[in-house]
Amino acid sequence: MLEKITPRTEDFSRWYTDVIAAGQLADYAPVKGCMVIRPNGFALWENFQRALDGMFKETGHENAYFPLFIPESFLKKEAEHVEGFAPECAVVTHGGGKELEEPLVVRPTSETIIWAMFRKWIESYRDLPLLMNQWCNVVRWEMRTRLFLRTLEFLWQEGHTAHGTAEEAEEETRRMLEVYRRFAEDWMAMPVISGIKTEREKFAGAVRTYSIEAMMQDRKALQSGTSHNLGQNFARAFDVTFQNERGEREFVWATSWGVSTRLIGALIMTHGDDKGIILPPKLAPTHCVLIPIYKGEDQRALVLERLEAIGNTLSPDFKVKVDKREGYTPGWKFYDWEQKGVPLRVEMGPRDLAKNQVVLVRRDTGEKIPVGTEGLVDRVRDVLDAIQRSLFEKARSLMLQNSVTLDDYLDVVRFLEGPGGFVYGRLCNSFSCEEKIQEETKATVRCIPFDRPPDPGPCLVCGKTVDGRVVIAKGY
Amino acid sequence: MLEKITPRTEDFSRWYTDVIAAGQLADYAPVKGCMVIRPNGFALWENFQRALDGMFKETGHENAYFPLFIPESFLKKEAEHVEGFAPECAVVTHGGGKELEEPLVVRPTSETIIWAMFRKWIESYRDLPLLMNQWCNVVRWEMRTRLFLRTLEFLWQEGHTAHGTAEEAEEETRRMLEVYRRFAEDWMAMPVISGIKTEREKFAGAVRTYSIEAMMQDRKALQSGTSHNLGQNFARAFDVTFQNERGEREFVWATSWGVSTRLIGALIMTHGDDKGIILPPKLAPTHCVLIPIYKGEDQRALVLERLEAIGNTLSPDFKVKVDKREGYTPGWKFYDWEQKGVPLRVEMGPRDLAKNQVVLVRRDTGEKIPVGTEGLVDRVRDVLDAIQRSLFEKARSLMLQNSVTLDDYLDVVRFLEGPGGFVYGRLCNSFSCEEKIQEETKATVRCIPFDRPPDPGPCLVCGKTVDGRVVIAKGY
Repeated sequence: MLEKITPRTEDFSRWYTDVIAAGQLADYAPVKGCMVIRPNGFALWENFQRALDGMFKETGHENAYFPLFIPESFLKKEAEHVEGFAPECAVVTHGGGKELEEPLVVRPTSETIIWAMFRKWIESYRDLPLLMNQWCNVVRWEMRTRLFLRTLEFLWQEGHTAHGTAEEAEEETRRMLEVYRRFAEDWMAMPVISGIKTEREKFAGAVRTYSIEAMMQDRKALQSGTSHNLGQNFARAFDVTFQNERGEREFVWATSWGVSTRLIGALIMTHGDDKGIILPPKLAPTHCVLIPIYKGEDQRALVLERLEAIGNTLSPDFKVKVDKREGYTPGWKFYDWEQKGVPLRVEMGPRDLAKNQVVLVRRDTGEKIPVGTEGLVDRVRDVLDAIQRSLFEKARSLMLQNSVTLDDYLDVVRFLEGPGGFVYGRLCNSFSCEEKIQEETKATVRCIPFDRPPDPGPCLVCGKTVDGRVVIAKGY
Repeated sequence: MLEKITPRTEDFSRWYTDVIAAGQLADYAPVKGCMVIRPNGFALWENFQRALDGMFKETGHENAYFPLFIPESFLKKEAEHVEGFAPECAVVTHGGGKELEEPLVVRPTSETIIWAMFRKWIESYRDLPLLMNQWCNVVRWEMRTRLFLRTLEFLWQEGHTAHGTAEEAEEETRRMLEVYRRFAEDWMAMPVISGIKTEREKFAGAVRTYSIEAMMQDRKALQSGTSHNLGQNFARAFDVTFQNERGEREFVWATSWGVSTRLIGALIMTHGDDKGIILPPKLAPTHCVLIPIYKGEDQRALVLERLEAIGNTLSPDFKVKVDKREGYTPGWKFYDWEQKGVPLRVEMGPRDLAKNQVVLVRRDTGEKIPVGTEGLVDRVRDVLDAIQRSLFEKARSLMLQNSVTLDDYLDVVRFLEGPGGFVYGRLCNSFSCEEKIQEETKATVRCIPFDRPPDPGPCLVCGKTVDGRVVIAKGY
């Protein structure tokens, strides 16, 4: 049960895998590159889904389900799209004991199959906007895989919308990026930078791709959500037109946007410590674990009775577990729940019982807070709120402390050779300047951030004048 | 929008497809045999999931996610299992642009991959029981497909549990069948017969299979949920043992159980009428649709204002939609919402406004109930409860009226040649007697029902004395 976790400073990558094993979040599957999401990991994903799904529905989207299998020919209809995805596809060639006439691709993303259906459903401007989302599995053949971050099969949601004007599509693309930002910051307590991707980094088939980028504790960037303005590319490829209010036929405008189980990896690497994962209270499947401390059977009965009563008091407001397991020391239990990331521990021993108090222990700071059992619900709520806020603040400090503004190419290289972080530097939108940086430093342009004032100056590589700065960092 | 629906008496099978099209529940996908679940259908499935998932969690199960791809060799480890599923498999032979060393099967069901993982996780009796469930897509290569009932890919949940004793596994198998019965009857308002499958009809790899069977309006049976006691078959195939309390190693005992999107087909064929689907209130994504009736702009403003206020009164308790669309007559709107199966329509015109009343119209009976706006929430709740009950009663009457007890083989054949229904007849558990009936009548043994008293007598076919009766019917 209790697993040894490699310290972050020793080997961040091993720390990450150790935390996943210790928290029983996921496991490697028999097929190389595939992942099993264990109950602790899946309960977390269910909470991600619930929060996001609520936000999608608030913004007018409906869920649907499109097929897993896509005819190979569909993928080829959009030139950039097939170039981006064909090398990553899993292909079904046999079904029902026979070789298929046309191979089927296991969806790597569903633009093509969805736009083939939109063609059947969209006739006039009255049918627009069409705002859909699906929760599903997708497959991309990856050679270098890591649990949650990059696996052959993963779970995600993909929104697909159809609009009557370019402006509406752009608004939708930005609206959903903002939904992702809010989810990352307000729920995951993970600060992000919102921005637009460069031409080189955008989605295969998109006109513009926006992303949110977060800094992990190893100072690398993790792309945590993307939202694409697809223009009329897929409408043209699948011949989807609508009759506008003036009676003319026009191609439909499209967006797509997605986040995946990769966010669980992001959560681990944003908040985890050398004891394991730390769950932000707003997404934790269990908020409080109540642990009895006793010697002998008499004490046990007394403490447990009181602790169960306290559990009942807390459980209408919080998800609570009382750890009644016998044969384990309190210390072992503390450690076990720390590895599982439960935000708040509630301890009670005979002395607490006498004083009519419990001791709250914060998972994030280890702070011990003795509190009377009167008004406990409010105190627990306050402490959980404080944990949520302080996780965010801590992550934000890390990001700010490890972000630099640099104007000299060699300074950038030197910074990225060190512990690294985010470089705000000027870079023109040409493939060659981006490639040069990547070759030399392994870092890429994460995005052109929204919230920066204009700051014209020369491109780090070619010296051409550009309007402002991009974020450069090594990424996952 | 408004589709013509073939009457049930004219062609039940076309009626079924028409209802799905009219309700915008699902559509055919470009790949033959695959299905797109449209937002109206998916919202329904989400409600099925929510209710079932709650019942699974109440009975101690946790959700997890196992991979889509299963090495072909895994499927072959359990002899009966591979025989049952191999002919239906979709096979991935290429990935990432290369031919794979070992082909991967797209899961038709997940026993094999899950037991490969259970081997890693189960060590001693302390790890048992292990109670897992997953919601996912599965693929079975079907040649004759029908929307929801039988499609190449479908959505389902599959529970998989591991136990320390045969008794516990049997209890679990029966417990989950009972969960399915409760869901079918209490939520779907669909009466079912619970029973055990014959040797010939049981799941490939199971020791015993239980099922719930419902009668559709065409008097055919639909298997609506199955629960399997897998004995130690998969534990032996995957070498999964545990150390019992006496320190001995034993093979683990297993169950699996599942229901699928097929239940949406069952719902349609149980309650639908010639106007379309009828949704039981407990599963309806929309409970009430409020429709304003007016002439001219002045009336429109007055009626709409009042109706929106009424919508706000109802919406904390019910899912409500106010149909404010312009350019459609009230009659057209009635018909549109009837096709979508919304259980209750709330009409308000100028005369109702003057009388401070609305008219409730039941989707199932068409009954019109004028009610004052005071205490409306309670009246709506009563009417919705009445609809839920009366859908169940109506379906139960149909089943009872079309069930017969027969002792003579020729009577059975004649009954099944007519409009048909459920025959309670005696049949021994031999493959040949079942085959004879099936060849002659196309009917099969649906199950050996639980709730029948012993009733010994001769097998319909061979005359051998058996203990009681089985249910024989044509099935989907």
